[in-house]
Amino acid sequence: MLTVIGIGPGSQAMMTVEATEALAAADIIVGYKTYTHLVKAFTGDKQVIKTGMCKEIERCQTAIDLAKEGHNVALVSSGDAGIYGMAGLILELVSQQQAGIEVRVVPGMTASIAAAALLGAPLMHDFCHISLSDLLTPWPVIEKRIIAAGEADFVICFYNPRSRGREGHLARAFDLLMTVKNPATPVGVVKAAGRKKEEKWLTTLADMDYDPVDMTSLVVVGNATTYVKDGLMITPRGYRL
Amino acid sequence: MLTVIGIGPGSQAMMTVEATEALAAADIIVGYKTYTHLVKAFTGDKQVIKTGMCKEIERCQTAIDLAKEGHNVALVSSGDAGIYGMAGLILELVSQQQAGIEVRVVPGMTASIAAAALLGAPLMHDFCHISLSDLLTPWPVIEKRIIAAGEADFVICFYNPRSRGREGHLARAFDLLMTVKNPATPVGVVKAAGRKKEEKWLTTLADMDYDPVDMTSLVVVGNATTYVKDGLMITPRGYRL
Repeated sequence: MLTVIGIGPGSQAMMTVEATEALAAADIIVGYKTYTHLVKAFTGDKQVIKTGMCKEIERCQTAIDLAKEGHNVALVSSGDAGIYGMAGLILELVSQQQAGIEVRVVPGMTASIAAAALLGAPLMHDFCHISLSDLLTPWPVIEKRIIAAGEADFVICFYNPRSRGREGHLARAFDLLMTVKNPATPVGVVKAAGRKKEEKWLTTLADMDYDPVDMTSLVVVGNATTYVKDGLMITPRGYRL
Repeated sequence: MLTVIGIGPGSQAMMTVEATEALAAADIIVGYKTYTHLVKAFTGDKQVIKTGMCKEIERCQTAIDLAKEGHNVALVSSGDAGIYGMAGLILELVSQQQAGIEVRVVPGMTASIAAAALLGAPLMHDFCHISLSDLLTPWPVIEKRIIAAGEADFVICFYNPRSRGREGHLARAFDLLMTVKNPATPVGVVKAAGRKKEEKWLTTLADMDYDPVDMTSLVVVGNATTYVKDGLMITPRGYRL
């Protein structure tokens, strides 16, 4: 039995009841070391297998092999396992290898939802998720989506906004957006949501400071009606008040 | 004190730890009657104020007025309160009325994430949410977003896909998508996720049967790489396997 668990952005408070139960029931916990650390309240004397960054395929294979041996394995993924997480890779590998194990995906709180609750209510209207990592996606595809999302006035959540080797991606994305959106459009940033070092701030497309943004950050760009009031970022749903 | 709580799609298993704690701590629970029913495990002898459909402003005003009287009020919203839910309206009203009460938004599991975990892993790449309700949004804006999302190859999650008075919206959306996407693109439908009457099925843009789709349904349309295997809908992240 292999359970792929979305553990949410960091704090136990944002885990689902189902995720806490699945963690408690597992014999072995497998995950990227930052994430196994986030669930250490649940590990007790269970075996914990930590793997490094960019070792996704090895990590998933380890979890599958242990499940084939009969263990009850929990593979932890930050946020939701099905959003830029490990659920897809596990299902692809299990199917390709005809591994014959039972797999369950336990959904989790993704970063955009956690960040939105901290910023106010920026996702009250149609929105999209765009990852700015071009490790697995050609950059021209990403640019096409950025422009389309801007032109159709979606609220935009940028995942993986900035990291070593792609410091310029977020700035490039904002430059593209400013060709189709008002440069004064509100922008909210939440860093390390639900973790000890949580930070958040509000700015605009034109005034954005890219330097403090890192891989643990989630960037939300408003639509044409989004405004900031009393320190909160709000996208109206459209009620007449 | 007013806590706007996203209770997830239905089952207690998909509530966050924080949501269960906030429900337990409240004196009064306010919500649409279907949602107050979903949290009845937490109500005990608390006062419960149920309101009808389309009474969002009255519902929020009731919650605000009770909080101003000093009660610890929980306003429950299905899914995530910040996604087509009550969080935005509460923050707008509190700000507009200078209500002077403390508001906290507790994020919840939105329908797309819950549905995706049941379907497989369809949201592994960039995706968007589009509501097909034109009660608060002009239909031409919705059409523009549908076409943009199709052209830029986002996975698309349709909220409020079909209800009395707008039976034809989903069919119209699919007709638009088939002008820019392969008619064989996989589609997943989940109805009443996490509730007793939960159902799910897979189809394609061309083969879609609209009749069983209702307001409790979430419809996921794949991107150009999405496939179905072993009964699961998978959008590859891009790893070479």
